[in-house]
Amino acid sequence: MKETVTVVKVGGAVVEDEQQLDTLLTTFSAIQGKKVLVHGGGRRATKVAAGLGIESTMIEGRRVTDAAMLEVVTMVYGGLVNKNIVAKLQAKGVNGIGLTGADMNVIKTHKRPVQNGTDYGFVGDVDKVSCQVLSTLLEEGAVPVLAPLSHDGKGCLLNTNADTIAAETAKALAARYDVTLIYSFEKKGVLRNPDDDESVIPFITPAVFHTLIEEGIVAGGMIPKLENALAAVDSGVRKVVITQANAIDGTQGTIITK
Amino acid sequence: MKETVTVVKVGGAVVEDEQQLDTLLTTFSAIQGKKVLVHGGGRRATKVAAGLGIESTMIEGRRVTDAAMLEVVTMVYGGLVNKNIVAKLQAKGVNGIGLTGADMNVIKTHKRPVQNGTDYGFVGDVDKVSCQVLSTLLEEGAVPVLAPLSHDGKGCLLNTNADTIAAETAKALAARYDVTLIYSFEKKGVLRNPDDDESVIPFITPAVFHTLIEEGIVAGGMIPKLENALAAVDSGVRKVVITQANAIDGTQGTIITK
Repeated sequence: MKETVTVVKVGGAVVEDEQQLDTLLTTFSAIQGKKVLVHGGGRRATKVAAGLGIESTMIEGRRVTDAAMLEVVTMVYGGLVNKNIVAKLQAKGVNGIGLTGADMNVIKTHKRPVQNGTDYGFVGDVDKVSCQVLSTLLEEGAVPVLAPLSHDGKGCLLNTNADTIAAETAKALAARYDVTLIYSFEKKGVLRNPDDDESVIPFITPAVFHTLIEEGIVAGGMIPKLENALAAVDSGVRKVVITQANAIDGTQGTIITK
Repeated sequence: MKETVTVVKVGGAVVEDEQQLDTLLTTFSAIQGKKVLVHGGGRRATKVAAGLGIESTMIEGRRVTDAAMLEVVTMVYGGLVNKNIVAKLQAKGVNGIGLTGADMNVIKTHKRPVQNGTDYGFVGDVDKVSCQVLSTLLEEGAVPVLAPLSHDGKGCLLNTNADTIAAETAKALAARYDVTLIYSFEKKGVLRNPDDDESVIPFITPAVFHTLIEEGIVAGGMIPKLENALAAVDSGVRKVVITQANAIDGTQGTIITK
């Protein structure tokens, strides 16, 4: 039987709220077995950039990472957010180790090519997450804390979406471990009725997913999120859980399986 | 026979100059055997702080780290400087892993108490550098890259002098390895005549040190630097080398031994 690993992704909004972050880290500390935390960046980068006179450019809601903004996200995601989480985990008895993709070459990406005239700048699309490096750390009792930053192997750091890092990390670890991927989320799970916070859909399989789309219950940004979750499950991740930040023990929320 | 480890400390000025940093990292890459890089911070933190409207306060030339400045050094030292060095090392085939003292609890410190009314703020004095954690990483072929940041084990990051981190790391590793500690420096070594860059004193032992002080050849800031070097040698480090950033292979500069 494979050993379990829980990969938890926490978004920027939770990370920036000291109280919410503390609750999340306490719940995370209580998760049994091997585990990995992946964190987003949040609005702090925009604030720091503004303070330094660097303009934030967005294309369809996504940040364009020019050279100046890459420095800012390296500071904020790789330094401020990541290292504070690690220090707080250590205080809770969790042996955190903060990593970007460059560290031990754990996440190798390539710079996203310009597509249809759209240039996102220093953004990396994942080539490989190293199961071997993560296993080595996990077997030592360390808990990797991954920032949404990767590298191209040629000396350049790249900005990479935290949801993607979480999914690719879970898939890579599935080669060796029994992996559960937990996306912490502002709602209690995927809702049947967006106006009813209690209408959580408990289980989603590919068949259920198609029905939900046909019925128009799942729409918008939730579609790619669920597609990614189903792809992870298809690649060997046991289950993906979409749940609230204060309920990341894997027993609540929406569970996505094969 | 113990295996060798070379601990190289590079200062903030070199780290901030792209050309000098590249030369240093190329020379560092060529060092045989296990190795550790410790880097300083530099003036970038002051610039970022100024941009964010945070005042830098100095007491006798030393930075006071208040809560806002701690965030800045966490961003700049732990993020920007550290992760860029790691990415550049990876490109040179060196398996760097960037660490603060919080990561895997590698450097535990305590907040410096207020002394004679002087409060340096969030500055950490070293309790312990973990030889075990560093050994684990070194045995995996990783090359630790240490930022001048530590933690108190209670959730707080602390600012710690890079020279001190280098010395304490070398001492801790001496329990298991044959350690050489190299301080990269703006001069070719400790000079007999400050106006003659070629007047490098090749060897310093405790006896030579006392003679140099008596003769007034060594004075000012070089005295504590050499005292620290001799203390490291006294604690089991094989030798300390003070040399230029482009000559960190340990064959040039001033060699301090027992």
